[in-house]
Amino acid sequence: MFFASDNTSGVHPKIMEALVKANDGYAAPYANDRWTAELTERLRDLFQAPDALVYPMVSGTGTNAALLAAMTPPWGIVYCHKTAHIEVDERNSVPFYSGGAKLKLMAGEGSRMTPNELRTAVTGDSARDDVHASPPAAVSLTNLTEFGELYRPADIAALAEASRLPLHFDGARFANAMAASGATPWQMTRELATLSLGATKTGAMGAEAAVLFDPSYKEAFESQRMRGGHNLSKARYISAQILAWLEGDLWLELATQANAIGARLARGIAEIGGELAYRVEGNLVFARLPRRMHVQAKAKGAVYNMWGPGTALTGDPDEPLLARFVASWSTTEANVDALLAALSD
Amino acid sequence: MFFASDNTSGVHPKIMEALVKANDGYAAPYANDRWTAELTERLRDLFQAPDALVYPMVSGTGTNAALLAAMTPPWGIVYCHKTAHIEVDERNSVPFYSGGAKLKLMAGEGSRMTPNELRTAVTGDSARDDVHASPPAAVSLTNLTEFGELYRPADIAALAEASRLPLHFDGARFANAMAASGATPWQMTRELATLSLGATKTGAMGAEAAVLFDPSYKEAFESQRMRGGHNLSKARYISAQILAWLEGDLWLELATQANAIGARLARGIAEIGGELAYRVEGNLVFARLPRRMHVQAKAKGAVYNMWGPGTALTGDPDEPLLARFVASWSTTEANVDALLAALSD
Amino acid sequence: MFFASDNTSGVHPKIMEALVKANDGYAAPYANDRWTAELTERLRDLFQAPDALVYPMVSGTGTNAALLAAMTPPWGIVYCHKTAHIEVDERNSVPFYSGGAKLKLMAGEGSRMTPNELRTAVTGDSARDDVHASPPAAVSLTNLTEFGELYRPADIAALAEASRLPLHFDGARFANAMAASGATPWQMTRELATLSLGATKTGAMGAEAAVLFDPSYKEAFESQRMRGGHNLSKARYISAQILAWLEGDLWLELATQANAIGARLARGIAEIGGELAYRVEGNLVFARLPRRMHVQAKAKGAVYNMWGPGTALTGDPDEPLLARFVASWSTTEANVDALLAALSD
Amino acid sequence: MFFASDNTSGVHPKIMEALVKANDGYAAPYANDRWTAELTERLRDLFQAPDALVYPMVSGTGTNAALLAAMTPPWGIVYCHKTAHIEVDERNSVPFYSGGAKLKLMAGEGSRMTPNELRTAVTGDSARDDVHASPPAAVSLTNLTEFGELYRPADIAALAEASRLPLHFDGARFANAMAASGATPWQMTRELATLSLGATKTGAMGAEAAVLFDPSYKEAFESQRMRGGHNLSKARYISAQILAWLEGDLWLELATQANAIGARLARGIAEIGGELAYRVEGNLVFARLPRRMHVQAKAKGAVYNMWGPGTALTGDPDEPLLARFVASWSTTEANVDALLAALSD
Repeated sequence: MFFASDNTSGVHPKIMEALVKANDGYAAPYANDRWTAELTERLRDLFQAPDALVYPMVSGTGTNAALLAAMTPPWGIVYCHKTAHIEVDERNSVPFYSGGAKLKLMAGEGSRMTPNELRTAVTGDSARDDVHASPPAAVSLTNLTEFGELYRPADIAALAEASRLPLHFDGARFANAMAASGATPWQMTRELATLSLGATKTGAMGAEAAVLFDPSYKEAFESQRMRGGHNLSKARYISAQILAWLEGDLWLELATQANAIGARLARGIAEIGGELAYRVEGNLVFARLPRRMHVQAKAKGAVYNMWGPGTALTGDPDEPLLARFVASWSTTEANVDALLAALSD
Repeated sequence: MFFASDNTSGVHPKIMEALVKANDGYAAPYANDRWTAELTERLRDLFQAPDALVYPMVSGTGTNAALLAAMTPPWGIVYCHKTAHIEVDERNSVPFYSGGAKLKLMAGEGSRMTPNELRTAVTGDSARDDVHASPPAAVSLTNLTEFGELYRPADIAALAEASRLPLHFDGARFANAMAASGATPWQMTRELATLSLGATKTGAMGAEAAVLFDPSYKEAFESQRMRGGHNLSKARYISAQILAWLEGDLWLELATQANAIGARLARGIAEIGGELAYRVEGNLVFARLPRRMHVQAKAKGAVYNMWGPGTALTGDPDEPLLARFVASWSTTEANVDALLAALSD
Repeated sequence: MFFASDNTSGVHPKIMEALVKANDGYAAPYANDRWTAELTERLRDLFQAPDALVYPMVSGTGTNAALLAAMTPPWGIVYCHKTAHIEVDERNSVPFYSGGAKLKLMAGEGSRMTPNELRTAVTGDSARDDVHASPPAAVSLTNLTEFGELYRPADIAALAEASRLPLHFDGARFANAMAASGATPWQMTRELATLSLGATKTGAMGAEAAVLFDPSYKEAFESQRMRGGHNLSKARYISAQILAWLEGDLWLELATQANAIGARLARGIAEIGGELAYRVEGNLVFARLPRRMHVQAKAKGAVYNMWGPGTALTGDPDEPLLARFVASWSTTEANVDALLAALSD
Repeated sequence: MFFASDNTSGVHPKIMEALVKANDGYAAPYANDRWTAELTERLRDLFQAPDALVYPMVSGTGTNAALLAAMTPPWGIVYCHKTAHIEVDERNSVPFYSGGAKLKLMAGEGSRMTPNELRTAVTGDSARDDVHASPPAAVSLTNLTEFGELYRPADIAALAEASRLPLHFDGARFANAMAASGATPWQMTRELATLSLGATKTGAMGAEAAVLFDPSYKEAFESQRMRGGHNLSKARYISAQILAWLEGDLWLELATQANAIGARLARGIAEIGGELAYRVEGNLVFARLPRRMHVQAKAKGAVYNMWGPGTALTGDPDEPLLARFVASWSTTEANVDALLAALSD
């Protein structure tokens, strides 16, 4: 009953197998190996982006920060949702890497930015055109969002149109978003300047790809990546993971399965009287359940996180408390059923 | 009819005279002169703060940023109102000086933070206690606010109590706030860790004092001041300005007069059918007036700034448009009457 | 004939096996797993440092920068040899992470700092004691140095005594240094405040440990690590590598073997008339050989790097050109003999 | 007998008079006033640079740092002499403003860089062309140097040719350099990308001009200036100082006079047996004199700074100790004679 995060899961056997196979002799370091070359070709094909630049990375935070720092001057503004990982969970990484850029937070609807709010914010900031003010530089969207909601291609196009700014996509759960949307990779990414493509949460050991659809960020990104300590020597082992993840659409298979588990869990929670706090479109379920359910589930060994202020397990047993349940590639239907039983029995 | 800003005014004759008098022979540089020593004594007395450290400065932005960067680690949070100068008008100076700290913006009521909102924000951020999150570090309040509203000593005490964080006070219009509040300097500043005391907008040529009520910030502040380029050699000429400004309570006299002009203008605007957008407690008046009034006043030479989005002078003549009018130490009653006539005739 | 770098080698089979074994079920993320707990205990024992803090990392550059940024204020000085990796190969990572600290470069003897030069530099900088100047903060030494030379425990003690500053140790080749010195881990590290312990170059896939012998750097280091993007979620796979590396002294076995290969190569180069540019104390060999030797070796497939300015392969065939040869854990005696043959035949 | 620094002098009467005259009514803030417009025209004419951009500043450190940060990326190298003010006296301001750029220090001859050393350094760094390395970005020269030596136009051209990088000129003593060189302003500046033109040390109260001969740095410089807190509101009072300083070549008159005082002092020191440590080409005199001379001169009230390590006034009375003597615009021949008498009698 491990629902704490998709990063508590292990590595998918096919990816581990690929690591073992990649461990063959010498390879040029710093992403000058043949696995990385193959990965670049593979992703260019996938996204129908023949000029895209691809870099093997290991850290979502590092990838987000190095990409965004390449997209904004130190005095610029990056727009994102107020719940974005870059705002909430990266200990000021974007101001750090960029040398001072700020995040302007959108309240959004649910956990997603809306085009209207974004347009108003960017238009107002652009209109100032004064050295005292900070100029708009970029937009960062997270998909799936931190609360499991989905931007579809049309949503992304609307944000691009509303902001007229380069778009960064935090794809820590890119596979889940793809599986949920039914879109093609090209449809999902055609409006983007850059992408943090995360495989770690969907079965890899530690593998992300930074994708520069706009190759003009090359020098700035490579510099940020280097000085940030993210130009790793034995990069073949990162690229090999992502290649295995893409092979035979393993990534989509794992994400589809995790999303299905999420849906099953959402249905079950509704059946036991829980209230879903956000739409469940992928593998994340946020739900309010009476305190007593949480107490007994945790006593029976369920592992997941309470969310937000005031979620202590002592108090009125009927008070509804918000919790986050995350399904991963390795979560089974039996796990869900056991969790639901632990909560409700 | 110059109502664009209090920084368009010149230097008060007594301050200019003090500059001429200070121009007497040699003086040790970098604030090791006798004027600065006297200023330190004078401000310690004024604020009843015998341990306070005092630094002559010339820039409000530089003073704010160097002080706040001494009060927060690079990964910390500084809370302020969403309209604070440090957020809106300093081109990311706080993230820059601090090496990455972020401003968390309070919506407030009018242009002031409320204790409840601040408490909720700080409590939530403190509760996370997770290396992913940014820890609360400091609060910055502006008094008078950017929209001319006043925090009284009890308001400041409430913010201190609500946040339990060190307080920085952006006092670009400290004199106006003092004149409006009727408080003593000690009452106004007793809760503060640091103060940016601005004289420039109230009659000086270019003079601020950074006041460290908490001397533990000494090394960090002096370092930020130095590397920011704000440790000026001929500092005697800054300190001499502030000494003259304090002498015989000139500062309060000038601020009282500017505030009275503000009140007169507010009454006059109400009489000609304008709507005040914020309480007028000092020398700043924000008012909505029909577009035709603005058009004719500007045609007659009135100088002031339209405010916010959609304030173009072409369009429906009856549409109310927001403008900012600022009274300075040198604004006369005749100036106000001329402005009102220009708007309404 | 791969002598380009020890990071072109693969992963030692025992370490790969440990990765496969660690891939077992769920684990708490962000170094809260049992492998990391065991690693901490293991390293505390090894270094006889019961209060030391240990963090699994993947990047030498990231580890160096995050450690040093915890040891210096933004306005401080870090002393290092002019050939240090942090100066020459990390694209300004220390000024970046620290928010402005500078490296002061020691000319040293060979590739090592000398106590006298360091003492003079630190003493001079300390004596200034002026806010205009940058204060001494830390010393960083690399062992083996970038040119393969060794600091013995007595050398390190002399640097500590000369500088009276906290010491950082860039241990990208820590195992090689240990094997070369014959010292115990405690002897080698007893003077240190922090250590970047690198396993990647000695058989791991991507694994370093940041060791804080002085736990007072905890908050600053953890913050730098987080915002730098080096707090990886599936950290068990890093710690598992290092545990396997330590197990049964595999690390020393591999380093001893690589050092022996280095010595064999050094002898062979001397025999074919090459001139060693630095003492060969570990697995790095810098040698000057006639251009024609390089030309023919490279034509026969030898892979290694020419070093420094003016090392183009076209020109006077007898001109001696400097090259770097690196032995790794997987280099064999046969590889050395083949290289020597390629150079000299 | 004030020879401590040219910044201990007061303000020249003509400049003070100009300040009083500029205190006339309202003026647009932030350098949008008529004095600044006139200053721009005046400097464009002086330097025969019709596209140059001019900004009134108050701080040499702030001007240097904001200019250099506009000329280098955060990962770049700025070359300067090891005694440059930006290295020795600005508490890491360049790494700070630039977000991480480093200074590479030239040993030079005396206190000046040599073209050969600079060429070697830049060529070597350029040749690396590797993301691990830091790329060359700019050169900063100080003229007069910190030790009073002069670069003539041909010297500057040689540095430009040797480096093929944009040149920044720290002109804290630009007037002294001009007076010493006999060159025209155009000859002295024709190779420059940017200039920190300092008037403070030559009779102003606090006035520098940032001159961008290359206007492509506009956005970056204006942004750095703003976020650094150097876009001052009442800028007319800065520009008015520089205009008065330029008027009737007052600047050259004052510098010529200070340089003549420097020469007189140098001759006198030689006559009393002192040894000049650097060529005296302007208003700075570095000389070694027996400790007893320093002791008695200081006892008689002479004010100047001992220089470098080991200059304590207690010890062997005959040991030669280095001191710095600075002549300013207000130093008289009688002052020199009194100083020499105090040293030697």
